[in-house]
Amino acid sequence: MPGNSFGQVFRLTTFGESHGAAIGGVLDGCVPGLELDQERIQGELDRRRPGQSRITTQRKESDTVSILSGVYEGKTLGTPIGFTIQNGDSRSKDYDHLKDVFRPSHADFTSQAKYGIRDHRGGGRSSARETACRVVGGAIARQLLERDGIECFAYVSQVASVFLDKHAEEIDPKLIETNLVRCPDPETAAEMESLIDGIRKEGDTVGGMVTCVVKNVPAGLGDPVFDKLHADLAKAMFSINAVKGMELGSGFAATEMRGSEHNDTADENGQLRSNYSGGIQGGISNGETIYFNVAFKPVATIMRDQDGLDSTGQQVKVKGKGRHDPCVVPRAVPIVEAMTLMTLADHFLRQKINL
Amino acid sequence: MPGNSFGQVFRLTTFGESHGAAIGGVLDGCVPGLELDQERIQGELDRRRPGQSRITTQRKESDTVSILSGVYEGKTLGTPIGFTIQNGDSRSKDYDHLKDVFRPSHADFTSQAKYGIRDHRGGGRSSARETACRVVGGAIARQLLERDGIECFAYVSQVASVFLDKHAEEIDPKLIETNLVRCPDPETAAEMESLIDGIRKEGDTVGGMVTCVVKNVPAGLGDPVFDKLHADLAKAMFSINAVKGMELGSGFAATEMRGSEHNDTADENGQLRSNYSGGIQGGISNGETIYFNVAFKPVATIMRDQDGLDSTGQQVKVKGKGRHDPCVVPRAVPIVEAMTLMTLADHFLRQKINL
Amino acid sequence: MPGNSFGQVFRLTTFGESHGAAIGGVLDGCVPGLELDQERIQGELDRRRPGQSRITTQRKESDTVSILSGVYEGKTLGTPIGFTIQNGDSRSKDYDHLKDVFRPSHADFTSQAKYGIRDHRGGGRSSARETACRVVGGAIARQLLERDGIECFAYVSQVASVFLDKHAEEIDPKLIETNLVRCPDPETAAEMESLIDGIRKEGDTVGGMVTCVVKNVPAGLGDPVFDKLHADLAKAMFSINAVKGMELGSGFAATEMRGSEHNDTADENGQLRSNYSGGIQGGISNGETIYFNVAFKPVATIMRDQDGLDSTGQQVKVKGKGRHDPCVVPRAVPIVEAMTLMTLADHFLRQKINL
Amino acid sequence: MPGNSFGQVFRLTTFGESHGAAIGGVLDGCVPGLELDQERIQGELDRRRPGQSRITTQRKESDTVSILSGVYEGKTLGTPIGFTIQNGDSRSKDYDHLKDVFRPSHADFTSQAKYGIRDHRGGGRSSARETACRVVGGAIARQLLERDGIECFAYVSQVASVFLDKHAEEIDPKLIETNLVRCPDPETAAEMESLIDGIRKEGDTVGGMVTCVVKNVPAGLGDPVFDKLHADLAKAMFSINAVKGMELGSGFAATEMRGSEHNDTADENGQLRSNYSGGIQGGISNGETIYFNVAFKPVATIMRDQDGLDSTGQQVKVKGKGRHDPCVVPRAVPIVEAMTLMTLADHFLRQKINL
Repeated sequence: MPGNSFGQVFRLTTFGESHGAAIGGVLDGCVPGLELDQERIQGELDRRRPGQSRITTQRKESDTVSILSGVYEGKTLGTPIGFTIQNGDSRSKDYDHLKDVFRPSHADFTSQAKYGIRDHRGGGRSSARETACRVVGGAIARQLLERDGIECFAYVSQVASVFLDKHAEEIDPKLIETNLVRCPDPETAAEMESLIDGIRKEGDTVGGMVTCVVKNVPAGLGDPVFDKLHADLAKAMFSINAVKGMELGSGFAATEMRGSEHNDTADENGQLRSNYSGGIQGGISNGETIYFNVAFKPVATIMRDQDGLDSTGQQVKVKGKGRHDPCVVPRAVPIVEAMTLMTLADHFLRQKINL
Repeated sequence: MPGNSFGQVFRLTTFGESHGAAIGGVLDGCVPGLELDQERIQGELDRRRPGQSRITTQRKESDTVSILSGVYEGKTLGTPIGFTIQNGDSRSKDYDHLKDVFRPSHADFTSQAKYGIRDHRGGGRSSARETACRVVGGAIARQLLERDGIECFAYVSQVASVFLDKHAEEIDPKLIETNLVRCPDPETAAEMESLIDGIRKEGDTVGGMVTCVVKNVPAGLGDPVFDKLHADLAKAMFSINAVKGMELGSGFAATEMRGSEHNDTADENGQLRSNYSGGIQGGISNGETIYFNVAFKPVATIMRDQDGLDSTGQQVKVKGKGRHDPCVVPRAVPIVEAMTLMTLADHFLRQKINL
Repeated sequence: MPGNSFGQVFRLTTFGESHGAAIGGVLDGCVPGLELDQERIQGELDRRRPGQSRITTQRKESDTVSILSGVYEGKTLGTPIGFTIQNGDSRSKDYDHLKDVFRPSHADFTSQAKYGIRDHRGGGRSSARETACRVVGGAIARQLLERDGIECFAYVSQVASVFLDKHAEEIDPKLIETNLVRCPDPETAAEMESLIDGIRKEGDTVGGMVTCVVKNVPAGLGDPVFDKLHADLAKAMFSINAVKGMELGSGFAATEMRGSEHNDTADENGQLRSNYSGGIQGGISNGETIYFNVAFKPVATIMRDQDGLDSTGQQVKVKGKGRHDPCVVPRAVPIVEAMTLMTLADHFLRQKINL
Repeated sequence: MPGNSFGQVFRLTTFGESHGAAIGGVLDGCVPGLELDQERIQGELDRRRPGQSRITTQRKESDTVSILSGVYEGKTLGTPIGFTIQNGDSRSKDYDHLKDVFRPSHADFTSQAKYGIRDHRGGGRSSARETACRVVGGAIARQLLERDGIECFAYVSQVASVFLDKHAEEIDPKLIETNLVRCPDPETAAEMESLIDGIRKEGDTVGGMVTCVVKNVPAGLGDPVFDKLHADLAKAMFSINAVKGMELGSGFAATEMRGSEHNDTADENGQLRSNYSGGIQGGISNGETIYFNVAFKPVATIMRDQDGLDSTGQQVKVKGKGRHDPCVVPRAVPIVEAMTLMTLADHFLRQKINL
C-alpha cells in the first residue's frame, strides 16, 4: 500500500532522497532469460541527466547506475533487479535557507503537512531526481517489449507558445535527438530553444508539452474496468513531477466532436480510417498506434524573489538558489517514455495469464 | 492483480455483465461505526440511472441496490459491504446483430482480442452499467468524508461548443440539479439541452466536459511519488467509459504560462493568491480547493449506419439499436463524483497511518 | 489491504455476516474460456453444508449458490465471477444472550476490541459460515487445475486419540466419502464416528487433524522468497477457523532427523527415493506429491456452562445454545481442499508469466 | 504480485543473489518521526551472521548494512528506507561443481524448473543469505513496536532429540544469548551444543525447533477472515528456509483435547485461566502473550556423498563443499524474530485505520 511502487506484475519500487546517500530501486517481476544490455540502460539515464546543455540545469549529476542483482551472465534471472545510483554533486548548502521556508507551488509545505518531518535538501523525496530510477525501470521494460516489436518514443510538441505542427502518427523518431529540445522538427526546435534561452536569462521558467507514441502494441492489453490501459497510463503520467494534464487520441478536442465524426470506422480492406481512439478502446489496446499528450507546468523554482510561507504560516521572501531547469520538457521526454514503457510491460505480462 | 478493484485501503471490487443476472460489488476497508444512510446511497444511484429525462437514454433501469453485509443496525461493522443490483429491463435481442460484429470505437473488438470470448449483449463487462456499482462505493465514501467536512460535487461545464463561462471555484453547487444537463448555470444549461436534443434527433451523439470540485480536503493526503493524489484521481477518471482527457488546476493552459505567473504565492496574511495548483502540490493536498476537468468523447453508439468489422475482419454495416445516450456528460456527473470520492476516501484513510 | 481477499492473480474476495442477508464473493482473475460445471460447484458446497449427519451440527443451511456474472453460455468470460448464498435457517434469537457476553476462546471479544462494534448473531463475520464462499472459489479452482491433470483431496487423519495409520501417499481417495467422518479407512472411520458421537452426547467437543494431498502439480510453482508455495499454503490453512498447526512433508518429525536421512536422494533411474520435502523444495514445487497436515482445535462452543466475560470485563456464565459441530474436522475437509486449490490455482496462473 | 515483498502497509521488498554484487531491500511504509538506532540494526544482523561460533558455518560474512535513504538526522522520514549489504567472502568456486547438478532437497532443481535459468553460485536467490535483509526489516519493526511496549524474542527449544522442558510463557529472555545455541536454559544448551558438535564432525546436519514469544500486543490486531494474525505469522514462518511446520498456542496437542479443557475461561477477576489460544482468537490478538513453535528440517547440504540429479535427469554423486551450518536453528532465531516483528508491525499499522 505505501506509494513507492508502480506496476502489478512488472513492478518497480524506488527509494531515495535527493541529497541522501543514494537513490535506487528494485524491479521485481521481470521475466527470466531476457538479454539485458546494461549500456543501453545507462544511455537512457544519460538522456535524463541534468547538465546536458545550456537549456537544462547546470547541475552535473553523473547518474551512474549499479545493477546489484537479478542479472547473471548478461541475462535476467527472473529474480528482483536491485540497483543504486549514488548521489554525487549535491550542494546541500544551496538549500539551507529552505529549512523553515516553503517555496510557492512546491512540495515543501505539503510534505511537512503529510509527515510532520522532511529532508528539505534538494526537495528530498519529492525531487525530480527520483525519476532517474524510473528511467532504469523503463529501459529494462523497453528491452523486454522490443522482443515483440513494440516501440515507444516521446518528444517535445510544445514549449510555451511554440507548437509543433505535426500529428503524432507522422513523426520521424530519428529526428528527436538531433536537437537539445527533443522536438522532431529542426526549425520548431530552434524556435523553442531560443525561447527557453530567453526565459532562462530572465530567471523565469516556462511550461510545455510532451507527446508520446507507442507502435506495434498487440491488441488485448489492458483491462475493461478500473485498470484500463489508458487509466494506468494516466496514473503513470500524472505521477511525473509538474504534469497538469493528459489526453489520449482525440483528447480534449473530442468534447466538441460528434459520434459520426469521432468513431473510427473501417474501410473496405478492414483497416480503420482514423485513430481518434488513440489505440485504445474500452480500456484495451486495439493494435493501432497509441499516442497521447502530457501537459507540464512551468518549473516552480525561479531565480527571482517570490512570496512563500515560513513554517509559522507567515509570508516570507524566497528566491531559488541552486541549479534548475528553465523548462522541464526536454528532460521529461525520457521520463515519459520510461513510465509508458513500464505501464505497457506490466499489461503485456498480465495478458500472458489469459493466453 | 486482476483489474476489477479500485483503491488500496478503501477498496471497491465490482462484478457483473450488463445483461447477466446482476451487477454488484464488495466495498472492503470502510471503517467501522459509520452511520450509513442507505436512502442517500439509492439517491445517488437514481442520479446515474438511465431513463431520467428526454436527453438521456430511454432505458428504464430501476437500479435498486441491495446491501447484503457489513452494516448492522444502521452502522458499518468494518467488515466488507457486499451489494447487488439486479439487471432488469435488458432487451438482449437488441444486441443479437452484434454477436459477430464489432461496432466502431467500442470495446467489442478489443474484448474479443483480450479474452477470446465475450458476452456481446449490452456491451457485457464494458457496459457503462458497471458504473452503477461505483456510484454505490462513492456514496459510502461521501458519508465517510462528510464527517470531516469534505465536500465534493461535479457538473457539466461543456457540451460540444457550448461552454460554461465560470471558474470551478465560483460555482454554486445548489444549481447543479436544477436542470437536466447538470450545468450550474440555467441559461447555459438550456443551450446545452437544446443542443443535445437536436443531436439526438439526428441520431448522432456529442462529447462534453465534466468539472469536479472538492472542498475542505485536509493538507497531507496523497503520496510524493507514484501514488500522487492527482495520479490516483487521473486513473480514477480515465477508468470511466468515454473519458479522453483530464487536467488539474491550470491544466493544459499551464503549458503556455511562466513560473512567475503560475506559482501560487502567499499574501501578507499567509493566504495563497491563486490556486493554479488545483489544491495539490507535489502529489499531496495542500488544503486548497481541488478542481479538475474531465473530457468525454461522443458516445460511440449512433443511430445511423456505420462501417464496422465482423469477426473475420471484413467491413460490415452496423447501426445502433437499443437505447443510448446522445450525450453522456449529464449522467457522467455522479460517476465522476463517485470515483473522486473513493479516491479521496482511500487517501484519507491511508493518511491515518502516518498520524 | 483490507483482509477479505485471498490470492494475487486468482483472487477471491468474500463478504457476509452469518445472520445478515447473504454471504457471497467475487472471484476475480479466473481465465476466460473455462467450461464451468455449476452443479459440481454446488456439490462441493453440499459437502461443507451443516446438517449432513448426526455427527455434524443440526443446522439446516441450504447453501445454494447463485452465480451472477462472469459466466456466459457455460464458459468463463475472464471477468469477475460474482456470487451470493442467501442466509436462511438462522435462529438469531439463539444469540440474544451473547449481545454483551464474550464466549471463551471465541472471536467475540477480539472482534469487539478491533472494531468497537460487532454483529454478535451467529459469530458475525467470524462465523465458519464464511467458508462456504471459499468452497465456491475452490470448486472453480479445481475445474481450472483439472485441465492440467492436477488433483487434490483431503481427509480426516485423526480425531482426538484415534489416528489413521496410513501415509498420505498411500491413500485411496475414493474411500473418503464412504463414511460420515471422511476418513479413507472404514474401520478407523467407525472408531472416530463413535468417539465423536460420545463427545456430542456429553455436550463437549473434540479436536482433530485433516491431511491434504495434491498430485500432478508441475514443477516450478511457487516463489523462492516470501511467496513460497508452502508459505501461501500455510497462510491458507491458518486462515481457516480453529486451525492451530500445519506441517508439510516430514513436518515436525524433521526436527529430530538428520540431513543424511531427510534428504530426498535420487535412485539410478532419476526417481526420488523419498518425499520428505512434501513436493516443495525452496518454496517451489518439484513435481512430486504435495501433502501436509492441518491441526484443528476442539470447537469452542460447548453445551455446558463456562466462565466467559461480559463487556465490562466481569466473569459471567455462558453456555452454548444453537446448533454446533462436536468435531469440526469432517466438515473442514472440503474447506481445506478449497483453500489448497485456490492457492495452487493462483501460483499456477502466476507461473504462466514466466513461461 | 511478484513474490519478493512482505507486508501490506509495513512492506519489505528484498533483492539479491548470494554471490552477486550485493543484497538489499526497500522498507516502505515505516511511519515518519521514528528515532532509529542504526547500531541496533547492525547488532541484529550480527546475531544472524555466519561465522559466529564453531557450531555455525565458518563463512565470514561481515554483513554490514548501509542505509541509503528514508532517515534524516536520526529519524525516519516516512519515505522508503533503502539499504544494501555487500557480498564479500563468497567463494564462488566452491559451487562450480553444481552448475549442472541439482543437490538433493535443495532449490537447485526447482529454481531451474521455474525460471529456466539460475545463478547456481551459493544457492543464488534461494540462499539463506537473503534473510539478512529480513533481519534489517525486523530490527526497524522492533524499534517501531517498542514505542508501544511490544516485546518479541525467540529461542531454540529443541535440537534433534534434546528438548527444552519449559513453557514459552516461563522463559527468561535474558538467558537466550548466554550460550551459542540460543537456548534459555544453560544445561539444555550445553547438551544441544555438544550434540551439534558431534553431528558436525560426522559431516551431517540435524533439525530443530525455534519458539517465538511476543508480549504486550494490544488486543485488536489481525483480521477475522483471510488475514488472520496467525495466518500472516504462518506465512512469515514458512517463508523462512528449512521450515517444515508451525503451531500456535496449544498447536498439534489441541487435536487431542476437548473443548471443555481447551477453552480459555475467565476467573473471578476477569483474567484468563489459560492461554491455549496463544494470544490470538478468531485471527485477532486478545492481549495475551502470543507464542508459537517453528519446526526446522536438517540443513540439506551435508559433507558426504549423496545421490543427486544432473540437468539431464541422471543420478549423480554430489557432496557439499563450502561452509554450511550443521544445525540451522541457532542462527534462525533472529530470523524468526524479524519475520514476527514485521508481521506485527504491519498489523499494528493496519489497525490504526480503524481507530
